[in-house]
Amino acid sequence: MSHKYMKVERIDHGTVIDHILPSKAFDVLRVLGLSGDRTMSILVNSHSKKGGKKDILKLEDVELTAEEANLVALVSPQATINIIVGGKVVRKFNAEAPRVVRGILTCSNPNCISNQNEPITSEFKLGPDEGHRYVCTYCERDIIDLAKRISP
Amino acid sequence: MSHKYMKVERIDHGTVIDHILPSKAFDVLRVLGLSGDRTMSILVNSHSKKGGKKDILKLEDVELTAEEANLVALVSPQATINIIVGGKVVRKFNAEAPRVVRGILTCSNPNCISNQNEPITSEFKLGPDEGHRYVCTYCERDIIDLAKRISP
Repeated sequence: MSHKYMKVERIDHGTVIDHILPSKAFDVLRVLGLSGDRTMSILVNSHSKKGGKKDILKLEDVELTAEEANLVALVSPQATINIIVGGKVVRKFNAEAPRVVRGILTCSNPNCISNQNEPITSEFKLGPDEGHRYVCTYCERDIIDLAKRISP
Repeated sequence: MSHKYMKVERIDHGTVIDHILPSKAFDVLRVLGLSGDRTMSILVNSHSKKGGKKDILKLEDVELTAEEANLVALVSPQATINIIVGGKVVRKFNAEAPRVVRGILTCSNPNCISNQNEPITSEFKLGPDEGHRYVCTYCERDIIDLAKRISP
């Protein structure tokens, strides 16, 4: 008895996020605010042709904007974003770390004004150095482990 | 430019969990205690041949035991479990709701002895009625929303 379960059809319309760091696909979903109510395929620790592992995320009937795509870079800087229409890649771009992130992340400083039940949206700015480091606009605290600071 | 991203290769060795209730694949992973360090594919809200939607989970190089498979029934009673060896289905069984669940779930009663930092493993028993209802062995409280009671 042969099985045919995992023949995943090619996506006809949507977004394929490729070259996600291994095991980071779930963080990508969280940073994009996508929940399980969409049609999607998630490949985790998939064997890459170049050797090594990667995650791949296929989102059906979703066309990510460049701004949304850049959010992917928060958790997986090398990811590539492919917009598929009519079964073909019509746009392709690399995720680029956004300079400013509003909402989405939560400051780790409990005393930060963004954590005081005030009507204030969190805001982080990309630091000037190469370290891909985000700093709270309000209290200037760095984010150490970004995946842990994604707002629920 | 045609894309070839989502040709998921057939699984050679592992477990395919099919007919998972739509959007419940993540809960299945949690109940099995599987994290993102494994090679797996997750199809969420996949279009079923019979119409309707379902989730599918492909776990590479994992052979679920019957006991583990039954845990799947906690969150998705109709799921089928297929064990694949050498690219073929060598065993197939339906998830059956376990009569007793030790660990895995947490009682919602904060005063329950299983929540008192005592060296006690939580335990729930399947109720006698048809309602697929689990009751705490210690304090007899019912579990209302099982997915919310999966231990982190």
